[in-house]
Parts: sequence; structure tokens; C-alpha cells
Amino acid sequence: MIEWIAFDADDTLWENERYYRDTQEKLGQIVAPYLNGENIEKILYQTEMENIPHYGYGLKSFGLSMIETAIQLSNQTISSREINQILHLIRDMVNHPVEVFSGVIETLEQLKSGYKLVVITKGDLLDQERKLANSRLSNYFEWMEVVSEKDEATYKSLLNRHGIQPESFLMIGNSLRSDVLPLVNLGAVGVHLLQAYTWEHEKVKNPEDHSQNYYSVNHISELPGLVNTLNS
Amino acid sequence: MIEWIAFDADDTLWENERYYRDTQEKLGQIVAPYLNGENIEKILYQTEMENIPHYGYGLKSFGLSMIETAIQLSNQTISSREINQILHLIRDMVNHPVEVFSGVIETLEQLKSGYKLVVITKGDLLDQERKLANSRLSNYFEWMEVVSEKDEATYKSLLNRHGIQPESFLMIGNSLRSDVLPLVNLGAVGVHLLQAYTWEHEKVKNPEDHSQNYYSVNHISELPGLVNTLNS
Repeated sequence: MIEWIAFDADDTLWENERYYRDTQEKLGQIVAPYLNGENIEKILYQTEMENIPHYGYGLKSFGLSMIETAIQLSNQTISSREINQILHLIRDMVNHPVEVFSGVIETLEQLKSGYKLVVITKGDLLDQERKLANSRLSNYFEWMEVVSEKDEATYKSLLNRHGIQPESFLMIGNSLRSDVLPLVNLGAVGVHLLQAYTWEHEKVKNPEDHSQNYYSVNHISELPGLVNTLNS
Repeated sequence: MIEWIAFDADDTLWENERYYRDTQEKLGQIVAPYLNGENIEKILYQTEMENIPHYGYGLKSFGLSMIETAIQLSNQTISSREINQILHLIRDMVNHPVEVFSGVIETLEQLKSGYKLVVITKGDLLDQERKLANSRLSNYFEWMEVVSEKDEATYKSLLNRHGIQPESFLMIGNSLRSDVLPLVNLGAVGVHLLQAYTWEHEKVKNPEDHSQNYYSVNHISELPGLVNTLNS
């Protein structure tokens, strides 16, 4: 019987990746004079992947990667006036509004009396707390955990720490890699929320290999029906 | 009766502030050509304080503040070659060794069988996890919580979440402001660890105003004796 329902935050409860893509586009405009036909997204993504083990996930890590990318691709010729513009891009992201997706509030309203609802997210601690506060959703949740990596080991220790049995735990999120498959491997229920925008890093190469073990929904409003079916 | 003992991490269990000061000194060398007799530490501190509400605490926030400071004080004339050197300073800090203070292991050994030991720290999530892992102290602790601010509200919700009564809770740390006074105000026991290096931001203007309500120790090895006295 499902007792706990965990939600990923970015791109599950609210818009996130779109802001990163918009910012990347603005970075592309700033560094355009230094690009020799290269694809800024590809170079930035490479820097980000190299930096994750050092800086972790989230806004500040992304910001430092943008600056590093701009300096490298310009062979250290970009001006500090332009780097200052990149600092402004970072600051703008800190203050971006939180757009809760349609259907989220209705879904939480339907689930709140029957289940313990929680949030598990990665990224910057302060930034995720700010977004949860600005979303006005915090009262629905028992707790939010910001973790540095969403892998099996992290979820296992998190479930242990809260005294939760995997069989009673369901997690929904837009990332198969981070929100669904590690939970399935632990014996919990994973639900994949299909979204228009998902970060390249969160994609799984051969999702069909796992397709027997988790559920997929096109919209978060399908969740209450699915949970009812699973618990009946 | 004390049942829980919480430790601050940076500058309580291991060296931290000294690395920040060393890095600041190196930043001073990089920006020296642009300084007109100003004090780099003072300007950087001002930028850091302005950025904390946006970026929070920790290494990446400090790094972004260093870059911002360098650009501003040079009136956007510093070269990106020099900003790249600042990026290297940040990367060096990510990888700095963790030097556990003398007496810490002996203290934890003495306390581990009688008390539940935990760590409460602020800063970057990944960075603090890395330091705890590298310190080889993690087995002593039930859990570590990385929080975005160490104020009364945060401690209150943390104690609630773990079902801990304030009277059974003692916290030790080098910051009166962050590790001691908020706990005392909640009815827990605060112990101030007097340290050579404490970040300016963590200092309290008039500590004597509160001096009746908390304990001070010169060295962490005095803690087991103090706890014994309190519990007898």
C-alpha cells in the first residue's frame, strides 16, 4: 500500500529547464563574437558535466560553468564587461518567478488527506527553498529534502532515515534517471512524468530497457487515479 | 538530561576559515594592479554580505563574489585571463584537504556511546558532504543536516522534524551567532568553542550581553567533562 508520495520539484511541480534554456540563449548572444560556428549549448554542457563532481548541481554551479565556458571559448580574450553581463544572467535566474504547472494544486488537494506528501530535489539549497516558498505549495508537504545526487544510495539512506518502507513509497518526476529508476531498483514505485522540457543530463539512453517496471503519465493530474488503482 | 550533541562543522571539527583567508590573500595578489590602496578584504566582505540573500553561504557563493568584486573594483577593466585565475582559486578550494582539529576524534570516541551525535552546518551541500567524507568522521554521526541559515526558526523546525526536545539538546560551535545563541533562545544548551579563526560575519557585537546563558570552552576536548557535569 502506498502511504508516501514524493515529488521531484524542478520541471515536475514548476517550470525550470525553460529558464536555463533562455539563459543559455542570452549567453549565446554575449559570446557570439567569439564563437567560430561552434554550438554554445554543446560546449557549455561539456563544461557543466566536468564541473558537476566539483560544484554539484544547481544555479551557482551553472553560473560558474557559464563564466568558465565564456573565458575558454574566447581564449581568454572576452572582456570583463561581458563577464559582468553573465553575472547579471545568474542574478536574474536567482530572482525568476516560480510558475507552478497547471494541475499541480488540484492534484495535491486530492492527495493530501490520504497520503504523506514530500519533495525530493537536487540543486542549490537556498534556491530550492526560495522556489518552494514562492510556489506557495509548502503547506502540502511534510518535508523537502535537497540532496546532492539522486542515486540509489541517496534514496536508500533517505528512506532509512525517515523509517519508510520502499513498498509504501511512490515517487513522481520528469527524470527517468533521477526520479524513477533508482526508486524502482529499491522496490518503490516510480512514475515518469512526461514533460516537454527535460535537461539533457537527465535523459536515459535506452528507456525501453526499463519500461516494464515503472508507470508513465502525460500530466500530473493523472496521478491520483493511478495511486487509487495501485492501492485497490 | 542531554541526549543529543550537535557539532558545527567548519572551524569546529575541521579547519575552514584559514583556507578562505589564504584564498582572499591570493585574490588580493591577482587584483593588486587595480587596487588604489583599498582593502580587498573589506570590499569582498561587502559583496559577500550583499550576495548572501541571493546566493546563500558556501564556496560557490564566495567564488561568485570574488569574481564580482574583481570586476567592480577594476571598473570592468580586469582581463578574463585574471578572472580565469580566480576560477582556479575556487577550484583549488573545492579540492583542499580536510584537516580535522586535534582532540576531535578523542572527544567523539568518549561521547559516542552515551549520546546521539549529529552535525549541523551551513554552506554548499556537496562541499560539506565531501568534507565530512574526507574527514573520516561520518561514522560517529547519526546524521548531518546542511541548512541554508542557522537561525532560531531553522533550528526549531529541525528539532521538531527529528522529534527532539530542546532540553535534551546541546550544540557546540565556534560561532556565537549561528551555533550558540539561537539554541539558547530555544531552551537548548549552547557551548561556544573559542577559536583563533572565526569569520567576521559570525561575530556578535556585544557577546557579554548573553554571557550568562551559554558555556564557553577553549578546546573541544573539554566537552565530555562539561556534558558529564550538566547531566549529573
